[in-house]
Amino acid sequence: MNKNIVSLGEFGLIEHITHNFTVQNPSTVHGPGDDAAVIDAGEKYLLVSTDLLLEGIHFDLTYTPFAHLGYKVVVVGISDIYAMNGCPQQVTVSVGLSAKLDLPQVEEFYRGVRMACEQYGVDLAGGDTSSSLTGFSISVTAVGKVGKDKITYRSGAQINDLICVTGNLGAAYMGLQLLEREKRALAGVADPKPRFEGYSYILQRQLKPEAQAGLIESLAENGIVPTAMIDISDGLASEMLHICKASGCGARIYLDKLPIAHETYAMAEELHADPVVAALNGGDDYEMLFIVPLAMREKLTNVSGIDLIGHITKEGTGAALVTPDGEEIALQAPGWKNEE
Amino acid sequence: MNKNIVSLGEFGLIEHITHNFTVQNPSTVHGPGDDAAVIDAGEKYLLVSTDLLLEGIHFDLTYTPFAHLGYKVVVVGISDIYAMNGCPQQVTVSVGLSAKLDLPQVEEFYRGVRMACEQYGVDLAGGDTSSSLTGFSISVTAVGKVGKDKITYRSGAQINDLICVTGNLGAAYMGLQLLEREKRALAGVADPKPRFEGYSYILQRQLKPEAQAGLIESLAENGIVPTAMIDISDGLASEMLHICKASGCGARIYLDKLPIAHETYAMAEELHADPVVAALNGGDDYEMLFIVPLAMREKLTNVSGIDLIGHITKEGTGAALVTPDGEEIALQAPGWKNEE
Repeated sequence: MNKNIVSLGEFGLIEHITHNFTVQNPSTVHGPGDDAAVIDAGEKYLLVSTDLLLEGIHFDLTYTPFAHLGYKVVVVGISDIYAMNGCPQQVTVSVGLSAKLDLPQVEEFYRGVRMACEQYGVDLAGGDTSSSLTGFSISVTAVGKVGKDKITYRSGAQINDLICVTGNLGAAYMGLQLLEREKRALAGVADPKPRFEGYSYILQRQLKPEAQAGLIESLAENGIVPTAMIDISDGLASEMLHICKASGCGARIYLDKLPIAHETYAMAEELHADPVVAALNGGDDYEMLFIVPLAMREKLTNVSGIDLIGHITKEGTGAALVTPDGEEIALQAPGWKNEE
Repeated sequence: MNKNIVSLGEFGLIEHITHNFTVQNPSTVHGPGDDAAVIDAGEKYLLVSTDLLLEGIHFDLTYTPFAHLGYKVVVVGISDIYAMNGCPQQVTVSVGLSAKLDLPQVEEFYRGVRMACEQYGVDLAGGDTSSSLTGFSISVTAVGKVGKDKITYRSGAQINDLICVTGNLGAAYMGLQLLEREKRALAGVADPKPRFEGYSYILQRQLKPEAQAGLIESLAENGIVPTAMIDISDGLASEMLHICKASGCGARIYLDKLPIAHETYAMAEELHADPVVAALNGGDDYEMLFIVPLAMREKLTNVSGIDLIGHITKEGTGAALVTPDGEEIALQAPGWKNEE
């Protein structure tokens, strides 16, 4: 990747190339720079999000079952709709099929798409197929809606708000490390038998993640509208920095509050890796990072499966991880994945 | 490409893999199998269409200027919205950037995206970027709306309806043949100087096609709602067969009515190619094929830039090209582009 592009990073690039676009339609409520595009559809807002998943960058067919991949593609798409506090309703999936794929593999892929559609109550509403000279290429577009009083951008976090996260972090990354280890160990072996016993949790987190439908329901039931929200696809640090930039604020996250599963710790120990780095920069968790006013603290106790990990600070204070002995370590985005 | 997939073809594959999906949301009006997904948004229908454009399959960076490619990507996306008789309003563009691309090229690409957005009055409302190991990959999603009484599927064509087409056919294909000829001739030449003088029309049709916004406006002004419509991306024959299949009808198209530009004839002669084959199977024209009741014939005279090329026949009669001496030649879809 060319240095100029790398130095801008994914989101710097989007900003750089779209800053001189002007909005022409009154229905375009919010353009590039959040989890989904926001379109005024009258009574509600319509949300549209698009993701591109490319073989060799976002998935490795050496160890990714096709059904899991189909499931994950839908989850990746609708996760962006949940991240706007919305409800996904449709997805379209387009594929570029390389010559090495056969029909049963494509059928398995779509079986996974269907399973995820059924799980999350969304409809496959379109998509096209073409051939590809360069690996399996997948484009997913998710469509959903959200009440105008409930929409949650990245930009509303206020000083003293609480920083919350669903589930646990870093497990998907440790699953990926395990898969990569077995791939390296078994390269060239005929009839390879990877050692996956006892690792099912972290493998599932990597290969078949789930979207946070339950959180959105629970927030609605408890009358909580977050001030900011984002799904954790690139890692907690990167997402926290997005919220700080969009909201014009700082953040303090407490190391000892980070939710990390014991399976993640175990794999990290086995691989001599740092589970905190996995949690901060690992990515692919598809958990939700959301910000809630301090006054909602009582109500938050009714929302299960979440952790309070820190609070929002004023602009100019930066985003930092606070260690148990009070040391502050600036959060850093890991940059573009697989950059050269 | 695996034989099973090739034998199904693009649309057979979509049908094969999506036939067992059930619709779960009442807002999902129409799923896969038309130009765009149709979503009930209250007063109007919302249209969402997605296309995947891959280097080496859909474009060749050897001779495609980045600004033209950006422009074409938007046209490809919104053309599907027009094909439902709708009005496009937003696009999202996601890109996978290969290592060989540099920032000025990406900027040029987005300059083309912006030019098309301004030309057609649509907003760039989102998109993401990632790296790509395998060539420049582009996903475009177009969003638009259409009145519930105006939506036009592929499936409404009736016996004796008139078959109409905008503009002319085959020019984009002849432009592609010229570009490929110069690429072959100049392979390995330092400082190549392709001979493009006098060919600007067919080159523009290939590299920077336009979408049929004017047709949709003109149909509305004249109170014409087609019974079926599709944009011509894969060639007239393929699109006519789609309409016949979806509508349960046959079709007769008259060879001497096919609109073919003199530049297309000239290039075909130079290359010893058949301009009729280019018109029927060339693709990339982004003209519109639309079907109108016979009773609208008078009104059609107010719509400029269109030709009546045939009529719809009853089911079971097949789709055929009729030569001036009355011979009927069955229309055939060219199959999957670039299949192995």
